[in-house]
Amino acid sequence: MDKKMMRAALKLAEKAAALGEVPVGAVITKDGKIIARGYNRREIDQNGLAHAELTAMLKACKKLKSWRLDGCTLYVTLEPCPMCAGAIINTRIERVVIGAKDPKGGAMGGVTDLMEQPWNHHPEVTFGVLEQECGDILRNFFKDLRAKKKREKAHS
Amino acid sequence: MDKKMMRAALKLAEKAAALGEVPVGAVITKDGKIIARGYNRREIDQNGLAHAELTAMLKACKKLKSWRLDGCTLYVTLEPCPMCAGAIINTRIERVVIGAKDPKGGAMGGVTDLMEQPWNHHPEVTFGVLEQECGDILRNFFKDLRAKKKREKAHS
Repeated sequence: MDKKMMRAALKLAEKAAALGEVPVGAVITKDGKIIARGYNRREIDQNGLAHAELTAMLKACKKLKSWRLDGCTLYVTLEPCPMCAGAIINTRIERVVIGAKDPKGGAMGGVTDLMEQPWNHHPEVTFGVLEQECGDILRNFFKDLRAKKKREKAHS
Repeated sequence: MDKKMMRAALKLAEKAAALGEVPVGAVITKDGKIIARGYNRREIDQNGLAHAELTAMLKACKKLKSWRLDGCTLYVTLEPCPMCAGAIINTRIERVVIGAKDPKGGAMGGVTDLMEQPWNHHPEVTFGVLEQECGDILRNFFKDLRAKKKREKAHS
């Protein structure tokens, strides 16, 4: 079940990559069904808050007509940043399933672990579901980006 | 200047209180002018992300057509939570001016200080502008709420 849902999140990350966005995707499930989807659209929307997770949480609140996402699981291909980890606390998401770790920007163990602090909600957290695939899509994206920049520099 | 802008944020907090929402208000300025406003609408919108600061940042990105809020100052009546502090990092807000501290939910010194960690942006932070007024509106809100609950209990 976790792998199936992470695959759906990976499909959304691919959608982001196709738009030239850092490829991160997220889905939110309830009772075994996907109720909301999101992928990174920061550049295309010129919106610093348009992360995959935040977008999915906004949609899930709308769908359930509730600020509390009780009984919901968030699947995300990359470890959440402080903003998205904070939104997980605020919306009371029950469980978070993460693909790849983010040692440079993660707030659930990477740089810091917000979930170890005394907030009024603490989700259950699972790391490492389809970790290789979730990391590969990011590594390939940045590799291609570096190659592109190198080509552009050579031609300028 | 800081006091004038914090007064504008306080007016928005009053708007939240009038709707029965925890009274927090925020404005974002650029070049001395207010470019975006927000106030807490969690209950009325049933949206766990509808904090004053996040709402104002969303509007500012839209207004400036940019995910980077370079040169912008955020004025907020209460210390930001992890989500909003994370959004400040993500949007590169240059300066944050805060009214009251939040020892129970603040992520800029209250419970933790995200700004002390190695993220790729660190705003300038000023605490204590109209601190008394910004704290009073919250204290009065919760006092009234407790009194209301007591009355309801007595009549049930």
